[in-house]
Amino acid sequence: MGKNDSSSDCIYMDYNATTPVDAEVIQTVLEAMQEAWGNPSSSYTPGKKAKELIDRSRQSVAQMVGGRPEDIIFTSGGTEANNLVFHTAIKYFWDHQQQQRHNSGSMDTDPMDRPLPHIITSNIEHDSVQLVMDNLIKEEKAEATFLPVSKVTGCVEVGDVIAAVRPTTCLVSLMLANNETGILMPIAKVCQQVKSLNQQRGPEIPRILLHTDAAQAVGKLQLDVLDLGVDYLTIVGHKFYGPRIGALYVSGPGKNSPLYPMFFGGGQERKFRPGTENTPMIAGLGKAAELVVRNLEAYASHMQEVRDYMEEKLLTVFGKDRLHFNSHFEGSERLPNTCNVSILGPNLQGRTVLLHCRRLLASVGAACHSDKGNRPSHVLLNSGIPYEVAENALRLSVGRATSKEDVDAIIEDLKQAVSEIEMCAAQSGK
Amino acid sequence: MGKNDSSSDCIYMDYNATTPVDAEVIQTVLEAMQEAWGNPSSSYTPGKKAKELIDRSRQSVAQMVGGRPEDIIFTSGGTEANNLVFHTAIKYFWDHQQQQRHNSGSMDTDPMDRPLPHIITSNIEHDSVQLVMDNLIKEEKAEATFLPVSKVTGCVEVGDVIAAVRPTTCLVSLMLANNETGILMPIAKVCQQVKSLNQQRGPEIPRILLHTDAAQAVGKLQLDVLDLGVDYLTIVGHKFYGPRIGALYVSGPGKNSPLYPMFFGGGQERKFRPGTENTPMIAGLGKAAELVVRNLEAYASHMQEVRDYMEEKLLTVFGKDRLHFNSHFEGSERLPNTCNVSILGPNLQGRTVLLHCRRLLASVGAACHSDKGNRPSHVLLNSGIPYEVAENALRLSVGRATSKEDVDAIIEDLKQAVSEIEMCAAQSGK
Repeated sequence: MGKNDSSSDCIYMDYNATTPVDAEVIQTVLEAMQEAWGNPSSSYTPGKKAKELIDRSRQSVAQMVGGRPEDIIFTSGGTEANNLVFHTAIKYFWDHQQQQRHNSGSMDTDPMDRPLPHIITSNIEHDSVQLVMDNLIKEEKAEATFLPVSKVTGCVEVGDVIAAVRPTTCLVSLMLANNETGILMPIAKVCQQVKSLNQQRGPEIPRILLHTDAAQAVGKLQLDVLDLGVDYLTIVGHKFYGPRIGALYVSGPGKNSPLYPMFFGGGQERKFRPGTENTPMIAGLGKAAELVVRNLEAYASHMQEVRDYMEEKLLTVFGKDRLHFNSHFEGSERLPNTCNVSILGPNLQGRTVLLHCRRLLASVGAACHSDKGNRPSHVLLNSGIPYEVAENALRLSVGRATSKEDVDAIIEDLKQAVSEIEMCAAQSGK
Repeated sequence: MGKNDSSSDCIYMDYNATTPVDAEVIQTVLEAMQEAWGNPSSSYTPGKKAKELIDRSRQSVAQMVGGRPEDIIFTSGGTEANNLVFHTAIKYFWDHQQQQRHNSGSMDTDPMDRPLPHIITSNIEHDSVQLVMDNLIKEEKAEATFLPVSKVTGCVEVGDVIAAVRPTTCLVSLMLANNETGILMPIAKVCQQVKSLNQQRGPEIPRILLHTDAAQAVGKLQLDVLDLGVDYLTIVGHKFYGPRIGALYVSGPGKNSPLYPMFFGGGQERKFRPGTENTPMIAGLGKAAELVVRNLEAYASHMQEVRDYMEEKLLTVFGKDRLHFNSHFEGSERLPNTCNVSILGPNLQGRTVLLHCRRLLASVGAACHSDKGNRPSHVLLNSGIPYEVAENALRLSVGRATSKEDVDAIIEDLKQAVSEIEMCAAQSGK
């Protein structure tokens, strides 16, 4: 367990929790802090320089997802971006209702009698979607359908989405790739079918807005918002070697797709997200996006090669009867970098195994659940992984610089950890 | 007008718009990006290291304002912090009302008949307060009193605050120092008197919460939240040589003073402000706070010396009949670094004068109003500055490194600008 004393020989395999900041991104942030510290709203040269950096970043981020620069709203991170989408959907629903009453000249109904907006999401979403929904329900501001993912495919079925639609449905929000299993959701198909439904809706029913949280997909998959067909897509810098800010792609903000600000203030980001811009980190996000645009294919194929090598090695070392791959689902695609695996056995809970690894730094699920004790991941349980298998899950997510030597080393770690734990258990007669 | 071609000999005097990032802060952000990129929620060493940096920063920021570390909530900036306070006050009011109805066993009244929460603020607040209020009023979620500042003192009168209190008043929000005039508001006295009122209120009436936006005061004045007596105080990094994030001081968040999150997600910042922490910028904010704790007296006395020198020189060069100091108010204190001055004359509008200055970079008001054309600042008009004087206003705010030589140079600039403009006007017969 030397890794807690010296981190020098640690091998990080938790790239889905966060990534290091790319050296070029660090350099960009550094230069912007030194040279572009002017207020982007100021009309003199240092202000204009900051504004130019922000504009350039907006272009790069847009290009990375196939959108237009004007579709990018910078936020403090993915959590804010996701919250902004849900806030927008609710306001949009009520504004639409009010407009309808106004147009039809009908009397104001008692606010208590008005139907609530309805939102469709899945039962394996990140907390920044799940808990937003939980709160909306608690406050009686919305109704929700948390679609169970298929235990065969690990992902939401398009037919289930369509079947869940009600006249009050105003938003479908599904993550593009799950953070624990890496499974990809059929966003393009969902959007296509929901759009058909939208076309059949009369003006008295609000259009269903479409959102995907692409936190885990950006930098690992080729993305195109037009192919996906979404209104909103969440971008999180620190998942693709960028800084700790984010952005929300909005297809024509305030025009094609509604966007209601959560903050009011100095008018920055066209009033959609006021507050003096974090120029250095916005510039860094742009640089991280540039790197993805330039190198995505190389990044993805390298990660996939290393990940596949890891899975093969695991099979060789532990044998297929001792392993369960929690991210292998029939007919589903997954992220190129994610391996979620359980080493089967009564004492091999994920946390225990990781504690016995000398070099491996990994997790058993989402980082924000790291303090939730030994309960297995609800994502895995909801994906149909049996309880005793889910308890043993290790999320091993590789990065751009992970090598096969790293894999060899962590497999040594795992082998030794398992043997230590089993020896210990044998001695204590468990 | 060479300053737009080469910024090398520019003299920046717009430190109230934003400040450069201190070299030590840059170094701290840089090191954190390189070494503390782990997810602070992860339980292994790199995550813990990031968490330690955040904890240390929380201590430094708390120390800077005289609060406890647990009173500091990191935000993306001042705009978010201010919005969070107003959001909290409104929720707190409704929750209190509901609790009262519940306790008294009374029937639910029609939501349309319920009185709205009332908020007291001033007519010279920053947009991140003013526009939040405007929106709450527009959405019929609150009522407001925008107290006019005294045209004698340039600040809110304590008696006016108390006179404006209604049974539905749930928040008093006043800036600590105005960003354009630098005038300090009597926050401590307001808090003292409002607290007396609070003690007289029965349980059926909500306590009045107290907020001050200290964006312009931090790093320029010695601050102590206990002396001030506020529940909430807004801190903005980029106004005191820190990074582009902020913090909200809350006196016992969720205990002594309510705090309702605007975002839901991974539980960071004790669920008051979820989202993976921006470790590098939080560490940088801590460093900027440390510098203030260590050097405030030196910073403030230097800025005041240079500012006072500037005002003397202006008087010597232009004469007192040609100048109006828009930040000199009888009996009021002001920030040590701010000089708001008009050079009187029909063609000497602030923007025109600045355009003719070779080296001086300054503004005519808040940066976020820089695109609002030639309308004079509403802060100055509301402070009793006559229209034709306010039109000519120049906001000259000095920084830690501004020298008397800089002052000499910009006064040369101003002299030459005025003479150019007047010659031009004379030729065109204006």
